[in-house]
Amino acid sequence: MNRPSTPDEIQRSEAVYSPLTESLRRLIDVTIRSDAGEADVRRAHALIEEATDLLSVQLDPDPFRVRTTPEGRPLTWGNVAFGLRNAVAPPLRVQRDGTGRATADLVLGAAYEGPAGQVHGGVCALILDHVLSATAHRRDAPAVTGTLTLRYVAPTPLGPVRAESWTDREERGKTFAVGQLLNADGAVTVQAEGIFIRPKAKS
Amino acid sequence: MNRPSTPDEIQRSEAVYSPLTESLRRLIDVTIRSDAGEADVRRAHALIEEATDLLSVQLDPDPFRVRTTPEGRPLTWGNVAFGLRNAVAPPLRVQRDGTGRATADLVLGAAYEGPAGQVHGGVCALILDHVLSATAHRRDAPAVTGTLTLRYVAPTPLGPVRAESWTDREERGKTFAVGQLLNADGAVTVQAEGIFIRPKAKS
Repeated sequence: MNRPSTPDEIQRSEAVYSPLTESLRRLIDVTIRSDAGEADVRRAHALIEEATDLLSVQLDPDPFRVRTTPEGRPLTWGNVAFGLRNAVAPPLRVQRDGTGRATADLVLGAAYEGPAGQVHGGVCALILDHVLSATAHRRDAPAVTGTLTLRYVAPTPLGPVRAESWTDREERGKTFAVGQLLNADGAVTVQAEGIFIRPKAKS
Repeated sequence: MNRPSTPDEIQRSEAVYSPLTESLRRLIDVTIRSDAGEADVRRAHALIEEATDLLSVQLDPDPFRVRTTPEGRPLTWGNVAFGLRNAVAPPLRVQRDGTGRATADLVLGAAYEGPAGQVHGGVCALILDHVLSATAHRRDAPAVTGTLTLRYVAPTPLGPVRAESWTDREERGKTFAVGQLLNADGAVTVQAEGIFIRPKAKS
């Protein structure tokens, strides 16, 4: 199932793994928040082991990497920011409007905590890195981060957050992007700027 | 089990949750790398649901926050960088030497991927934020990030990495820290500098 090659196989694989990964995100969350008794916790542990054994029957030694469908569409199911099969990913879904502005709305639960009740500063950085880089991405030329500067102006409470970014300017294959993270009230909690580089297209 | 209050209860809770969280980290990893057949994947999904139900029998509505043992030791089991009950955490274990230098060695697998085969730039940021902030932390006065600047000088391959940081200078409750991420060969891949602020102690 891991190496689906036809559009139909890709769709089937997505249909099986997408809800599994969603369930796994809930399991990560309740592992942190559980008040269950020791016997139930031990039983849950045994079930986790059993699920791991089932999925390990056949295992790719490599990470997921970026695979390509027969039509040339990139499959990034392992990505830590938005991967369909990566339960660490919140996951981020970036929306773009006609002006090149990129936005992501998401809800961050107990698994993304740093200071008590707040989003970890490094998770804010991960989100902003991804959303700022989206301003520079082109379908056939993904951008990589050159520099990223973050200014934490207020704590970011766990819960709904919005990240937004836009291009300040472009210069010789470099995109200078700026952006911010906002809390549920729409107040800015983190400001960011970054330089993103598109490796030159192979000729 | 979630609200252990005696040293003995805390030790028991740690002994049950620490291996469960380790197993959960493996489950996250194999969910990304599995080549198992559809029937096995569906069975694994059902087991994940069952484990979630067991742990959800009694659930804290809040995130873990920072709890305190009777002896005043902070319990940060939910922390996304190093939490004992947080399977998203790699987890980071910071070592300090006598000079105030902070170091963390860790192995990053498929769950932390960004570009194919490489650590996501935002994960590098999370690690460096945590390791740089460690230079500023005091037992009773955790530091928060003021600013963080990252310069990505080379790709960071998945696998063993080391983060290190040290204090450049201190000024009126602010720690100016610098640091870097190194790949398995000891070459620097990301450089970082940050300003960390210790909220004034309550008098």
